[in-house]
Amino acid sequence: MSEDSKKSVANVMWGGRFSQSPSALMEAINASIDFDKRMAFQDIEGSIAHCMMLIASDIISKEDGESILNGLYQIRKEIEDGEFIFKKSLEDIHMNIEGRLREIIGDAAGRLHTARSRNDQVALDIRLWIRDAHDRTAEQITKLIKALLDKAEKNTDTVMPGFTHLQSAQPVTFGHHLMAYVEMFGRDLTRVRDSRTRLNESPLGACALAGTSFPISRHMTALALGFDGPTRNSLDSVADRDALLEFMSLASICAMHLSRLAEEITLWMTPQFNFIKLPDRWTTGSSIMPQKRNPDAAELVRGKTGRVIGSLVSLLTTMKGLPLTYSKDMQEDKERVFDAADTIEIVLAAMTGMIEDIQPVPERMAAAAGAGFATATDLADWLVRELNIPFRDAHHITGHLVAEAEKQGCDLSDLPLEVMQKADSRITDAVYGVLTVAASVHSRTSFGGTSPKRVAEQVAYWREKI
Amino acid sequence: MSEDSKKSVANVMWGGRFSQSPSALMEAINASIDFDKRMAFQDIEGSIAHCMMLIASDIISKEDGESILNGLYQIRKEIEDGEFIFKKSLEDIHMNIEGRLREIIGDAAGRLHTARSRNDQVALDIRLWIRDAHDRTAEQITKLIKALLDKAEKNTDTVMPGFTHLQSAQPVTFGHHLMAYVEMFGRDLTRVRDSRTRLNESPLGACALAGTSFPISRHMTALALGFDGPTRNSLDSVADRDALLEFMSLASICAMHLSRLAEEITLWMTPQFNFIKLPDRWTTGSSIMPQKRNPDAAELVRGKTGRVIGSLVSLLTTMKGLPLTYSKDMQEDKERVFDAADTIEIVLAAMTGMIEDIQPVPERMAAAAGAGFATATDLADWLVRELNIPFRDAHHITGHLVAEAEKQGCDLSDLPLEVMQKADSRITDAVYGVLTVAASVHSRTSFGGTSPKRVAEQVAYWREKI
Amino acid sequence: MSEDSKKSVANVMWGGRFSQSPSALMEAINASIDFDKRMAFQDIEGSIAHCMMLIASDIISKEDGESILNGLYQIRKEIEDGEFIFKKSLEDIHMNIEGRLREIIGDAAGRLHTARSRNDQVALDIRLWIRDAHDRTAEQITKLIKALLDKAEKNTDTVMPGFTHLQSAQPVTFGHHLMAYVEMFGRDLTRVRDSRTRLNESPLGACALAGTSFPISRHMTALALGFDGPTRNSLDSVADRDALLEFMSLASICAMHLSRLAEEITLWMTPQFNFIKLPDRWTTGSSIMPQKRNPDAAELVRGKTGRVIGSLVSLLTTMKGLPLTYSKDMQEDKERVFDAADTIEIVLAAMTGMIEDIQPVPERMAAAAGAGFATATDLADWLVRELNIPFRDAHHITGHLVAEAEKQGCDLSDLPLEVMQKADSRITDAVYGVLTVAASVHSRTSFGGTSPKRVAEQVAYWREKI
Amino acid sequence: MSEDSKKSVANVMWGGRFSQSPSALMEAINASIDFDKRMAFQDIEGSIAHCMMLIASDIISKEDGESILNGLYQIRKEIEDGEFIFKKSLEDIHMNIEGRLREIIGDAAGRLHTARSRNDQVALDIRLWIRDAHDRTAEQITKLIKALLDKAEKNTDTVMPGFTHLQSAQPVTFGHHLMAYVEMFGRDLTRVRDSRTRLNESPLGACALAGTSFPISRHMTALALGFDGPTRNSLDSVADRDALLEFMSLASICAMHLSRLAEEITLWMTPQFNFIKLPDRWTTGSSIMPQKRNPDAAELVRGKTGRVIGSLVSLLTTMKGLPLTYSKDMQEDKERVFDAADTIEIVLAAMTGMIEDIQPVPERMAAAAGAGFATATDLADWLVRELNIPFRDAHHITGHLVAEAEKQGCDLSDLPLEVMQKADSRITDAVYGVLTVAASVHSRTSFGGTSPKRVAEQVAYWREKI
Repeated sequence: MSEDSKKSVANVMWGGRFSQSPSALMEAINASIDFDKRMAFQDIEGSIAHCMMLIASDIISKEDGESILNGLYQIRKEIEDGEFIFKKSLEDIHMNIEGRLREIIGDAAGRLHTARSRNDQVALDIRLWIRDAHDRTAEQITKLIKALLDKAEKNTDTVMPGFTHLQSAQPVTFGHHLMAYVEMFGRDLTRVRDSRTRLNESPLGACALAGTSFPISRHMTALALGFDGPTRNSLDSVADRDALLEFMSLASICAMHLSRLAEEITLWMTPQFNFIKLPDRWTTGSSIMPQKRNPDAAELVRGKTGRVIGSLVSLLTTMKGLPLTYSKDMQEDKERVFDAADTIEIVLAAMTGMIEDIQPVPERMAAAAGAGFATATDLADWLVRELNIPFRDAHHITGHLVAEAEKQGCDLSDLPLEVMQKADSRITDAVYGVLTVAASVHSRTSFGGTSPKRVAEQVAYWREKI
Repeated sequence: MSEDSKKSVANVMWGGRFSQSPSALMEAINASIDFDKRMAFQDIEGSIAHCMMLIASDIISKEDGESILNGLYQIRKEIEDGEFIFKKSLEDIHMNIEGRLREIIGDAAGRLHTARSRNDQVALDIRLWIRDAHDRTAEQITKLIKALLDKAEKNTDTVMPGFTHLQSAQPVTFGHHLMAYVEMFGRDLTRVRDSRTRLNESPLGACALAGTSFPISRHMTALALGFDGPTRNSLDSVADRDALLEFMSLASICAMHLSRLAEEITLWMTPQFNFIKLPDRWTTGSSIMPQKRNPDAAELVRGKTGRVIGSLVSLLTTMKGLPLTYSKDMQEDKERVFDAADTIEIVLAAMTGMIEDIQPVPERMAAAAGAGFATATDLADWLVRELNIPFRDAHHITGHLVAEAEKQGCDLSDLPLEVMQKADSRITDAVYGVLTVAASVHSRTSFGGTSPKRVAEQVAYWREKI
Repeated sequence: MSEDSKKSVANVMWGGRFSQSPSALMEAINASIDFDKRMAFQDIEGSIAHCMMLIASDIISKEDGESILNGLYQIRKEIEDGEFIFKKSLEDIHMNIEGRLREIIGDAAGRLHTARSRNDQVALDIRLWIRDAHDRTAEQITKLIKALLDKAEKNTDTVMPGFTHLQSAQPVTFGHHLMAYVEMFGRDLTRVRDSRTRLNESPLGACALAGTSFPISRHMTALALGFDGPTRNSLDSVADRDALLEFMSLASICAMHLSRLAEEITLWMTPQFNFIKLPDRWTTGSSIMPQKRNPDAAELVRGKTGRVIGSLVSLLTTMKGLPLTYSKDMQEDKERVFDAADTIEIVLAAMTGMIEDIQPVPERMAAAAGAGFATATDLADWLVRELNIPFRDAHHITGHLVAEAEKQGCDLSDLPLEVMQKADSRITDAVYGVLTVAASVHSRTSFGGTSPKRVAEQVAYWREKI
Repeated sequence: MSEDSKKSVANVMWGGRFSQSPSALMEAINASIDFDKRMAFQDIEGSIAHCMMLIASDIISKEDGESILNGLYQIRKEIEDGEFIFKKSLEDIHMNIEGRLREIIGDAAGRLHTARSRNDQVALDIRLWIRDAHDRTAEQITKLIKALLDKAEKNTDTVMPGFTHLQSAQPVTFGHHLMAYVEMFGRDLTRVRDSRTRLNESPLGACALAGTSFPISRHMTALALGFDGPTRNSLDSVADRDALLEFMSLASICAMHLSRLAEEITLWMTPQFNFIKLPDRWTTGSSIMPQKRNPDAAELVRGKTGRVIGSLVSLLTTMKGLPLTYSKDMQEDKERVFDAADTIEIVLAAMTGMIEDIQPVPERMAAAAGAGFATATDLADWLVRELNIPFRDAHHITGHLVAEAEKQGCDLSDLPLEVMQKADSRITDAVYGVLTVAASVHSRTSFGGTSPKRVAEQVAYWREKI
């Protein structure tokens, strides 16, 4: 339903009931112009390619063809200029454009629909639209990755606690943590690309469902519209909505990644964590509670995950069990996929902005990283590695020393060597080299590990790849 | 994002990218006025009640109070008349109305917010809105039930096949079949009512989250707004969105019921079934294929089920794992619940119209009901009931007679008595009384069974109850 | 598929492929005994009631009836004793029990199925099962509410920060916070009860779909099985799965509530918050990191929310668009509803245990509650309330004083009166009465507010009600 | 919870309540051995690779290493032989195998865990498992495609109605219709392959989350396990479940395709359509209703779609908003992904069997294809193509002739030429060449069209490609 303010408000006021006129109801439930006008340019682009092919294939005359093309150019201009009037009575974007074309050029407009049907036109338009959405999403993901790379590069030495179960486990770096998200969004990006490759076939020329007896060239229109070629089965072409479902699937996974990062931002901004600062533009405050920085943007990014997943569920449910080929149920595809695409774009953009602006509070991160004997694992590993003590025994010795430190109210690195040696006489001075947070972080040099050198390598790898 | 045509089309044309200005982005992701303006009247209603209570409780002066009330009345009128200008810069409906109030009455406007906060205002507005949505839905369901009762009452004798696995199993009547849906929608109606009862508590006065030290009367505002009383816990009051989730749950179940009926209408309208006729207003045709009656309205009802379920999933996902009390994620509740409510209302209305207009084709239904030895069960039951033959043997005899009829290419009721008696000598003439479709249907007199008398009783029961 | 270890492991080892025998495949996809055996007692209960009615209605002889009943009692005993052998070749629980009954009592077993069909038997069994699940869930919710009441009662004076946006906003009490969950689970409980009332009608006697010509008494069997009466429409009776969907809807909302509490427990247990302690039985630790308390149980409660929502989505999707009456798709209802019921029961029980064992760390909570000028709102409210200063001005003054306190590095309550009066000369000594956290909490005496007295009233209300 | 029959039934009998012992509850909610034992071989495979690398890198001695390897081989044999005893007290598959290893080889078992942690072990096992699931799914899809190709090839000339809105629109062939599904499953196959490529990186060596200071070679273990290389970020490695989500996404889309085909089979098997026959092995019947062929297998394929979608929703919901890295919530991944994989495999296998066995009823299909002036579009196209009549006029003429044929109760091809010419004098004898169903089908020679030649080309294309 249209959302113009007066009407929607009136809706509420006077009861929101549909008039008892069945035709008004049918129009309300049936018309799609309110949303499918977003495919206006795709529709025109498709018509231009189709018309040129009809001319080239001698299916319509050059005169008629040029008249149609000029009409289409004019309509495109009218829409760009905001002068085109979309009419609900004409039901959908295809009829709106066709109707206007007829006003402009007269009956020749009808020739445009030779060897074409509304079914393959709809299939083409939504495919062009979703292809564009793939491209926009890929671009937004790339921007986010770049922002993460920039921030990570500056923070390869910024230690922070690495969490499991939201309990700090071992020290890592802020750069390393951000690079984990680069991996996630990097996978998202390849998913977008795989999906785009898969969808890039032209359904135009499938006609109503069976193909046509006109000597059309589907390869020509495919080429003109940037497709790798035409689809191979006309029934499938008008019945298929896979590209939308795959887009919403990958957007759901991407939104899930974003929700994890947003959750962390929300956590890190609590006074209790206080790991980061975000400038006011991404938060809202309170006039009298100066300490309050509500991370609204992060919360919205997190909250909108539900929206993307819900859209995916909507279309999967709608398509489930539909016999071939086109059923009107499929008109429900558009609003949900438009919403999913709009949502993923805006949350990616908002997250990019936040990442650019985020400022770590290194002293808070470092303090948390060092708390709670966070290098106990390093001590145990040192015992195994340097003294060849079996793991079980190494853990036992470590546990004992941690208890000792706890008793003395000091850190592991503050325990005198003699205390260490009482636990195991083979321990040497060298052990202190692994007991600081910095040493711990620098020691994790396995591929993919948290040591600054490794993280710098990851950054370089992604700089190259993006 | 706003959906006005020019902008959304431009979106597509010039790349659909968000300007790099973070503030524009923050506004885009944060502002809710585009959708929450639908709660304008609820917001004003709540403010009026709050203001009256503040006056009565001597928290604000009578003068200030009257000034505020007059301002609110004027704003309500402006909105009704479509003259109110909603401003995105003011972010949401609450600020838009407050801003306008200040323009009209000056600083006294600020007094309205004594002992109130945006959090409890939002909670109140959406609760009033969803309460209205419950009422509209209940009304639409009631209309649909009445349409079904009218149609069923005229068709208590119209035999049709009863299906399991979409295979015809035993004869039933069209009236009986329609009454099955009355049961479903009848349950939906009680779900709406239970949910409405449960939600009917006023969150107003919970303030930001902790209640207030002002001597407000929450019972007074609750009463004024038609609630059964105030909510009992201020933290829960601003953190809770149960009423929306319960509404979307019941709407999902109701939509599922509608989708089953829509599926049947779609099936029944195929030339293969041809059980019903629907007037053109619910279908679309083809100018050159006169036989084609595309059941668009039924398909849309079926397809929109996905939309309602998707909305439910959206909000469940959004709310999952949110700490108390209010988080900005919860702003995501509105668009999905508005959409779910709009959708369930329109599909109920469309189905009501279709049911009113549906015309059975009794001869097609009867032919299908009689095909395939549909009364074989009746024969077996007769053998058990009248001759006290154990079920297993009765089935054996029936199977034999069906095979015999199949061989002779006739119906069971066309088999001569001697053939019957060859299968079992105890069979008498009386058996023919159960072998016709009509006899079968009339014999099913158990409570809830398909016999016309029973169905008439069901109709009467529901007439009384509605 | 059966999950016995050898087979499922072999599955993985040798490729997990289905033998090419179609009959093996059909058995694998079709047989339900692996899961529907959970309805064994419901099936027997239903058969006993049906048999007694058949005897009472003179449809079967007393002798046959008693023989059947004795057979059923024996089978029930065999199942209780774990001696019953469930056979996959007999496909489902109904055939397994019928098969065994025939072994025990011979051909009279067949008489049990007079005036009954597998369709109404399935419908009855699952309804009895889900009714039991409602009762178990109600009991678990009640236990959780009691645990919350006990804990809240002890903590009506334990101040903690009240959060919005996970930023502390105003002081509240731990008791008040826990009571917010009592409201949520209290609503869940009424949803369980409403749903139980709605489902409590007996489908037995609907037979295959059309009712029967035998003179059965559906009211008698309904009464015997604890139903309020029989269902009114036989087609609906075998086609309806609403009770399962409503149960999964309410379980989804309840799981969402649990996930919020689980999220908070997880947060509160971080060293950063450290608001609570949980004994080891609800956490896992690390042998060498003594500080680590992984809140596994809380995480699992939170994680299992997805499972319940997923089950709801499964069945909604499965039912969508199914024509009446029974379709085999509906066999998919059981595993999902069993899983949802098992899950909600276990997460409720685990949460009850955690709540019983949770120990607040009052000094940490109080410190956090007092940080960041948390009583600034109280100051502003005092200015409005006591000095009749308009809100806008009161906010201005408060903001000024907060800035002053920030500059001096002290709390609001530490500012000398002369500093206060410089901001507004009307301020008196009395203001200090509202500037402490304790004062703030005690002042929120509006109904549902956080003041200890109000919270104690809430506890008393719920004690009475449960 | 364990599902062995005695216990689960007892569950129901004695109340299904969890004992009040918190430790029993914690075990019940925490233990995963009941389901993660399915990863036993993956776990051993990973341990073998890890052990070999530890030896090669001189991190453990050759002696210890060989002892470990022999122990692992023995355990693998025990599991294959069904002699391994899985113990719930050991919680998960990793501890079960580790515990048994210690029993067999003593303390050296502990050395296996050098430079490894449960977190990367879990991540590795599930990745190996899901990689196998991809391979099994790809194989099943390929088999289904082959079955469709075989059936399509035999039916390139079998005409049937092409449907839109479940109304017959234009004639197509059964072969063409089946090939539409080849396109869908062909896309599914590429999705499986893309996902497999993406997931094929080894998380082993990420350790707890930060990498390790031991001089391990992650490339060596990656190679040994058939991965393309190691993952690049250790935090991501233990936090990531993308491969499972992508698998469930593609399985959901594939299940949706299957549900459409299953819906069609169900429709086609009604007496009303009667387009196909399926042998008894895929259907169930009724002893006394010989006409009944319940398409159980097809209904189950359709119904199980909900299950796969539900599993996807479960895990998306569970992962939403989880901070890095590992949280216990993620243990919820396995049961759902196992269920989704089992389900998609079995429904693919069942559909393959049905397609192999399906027998079209060509005379019924042809009759339906010809009914209702199905070649009216062909007539209109002929007028445009041959006589250069504008579309609008061509439609008008066609509509007129259809009305004429309807009046005369004959088909379009039965109208005498003079009647034709009265509508438009330019019409010639040649028109009859397009008015039969066969002519219509043969004329649709556009790429992807329904003409037998085109369909044969599609079959050849896919034969080559598979």
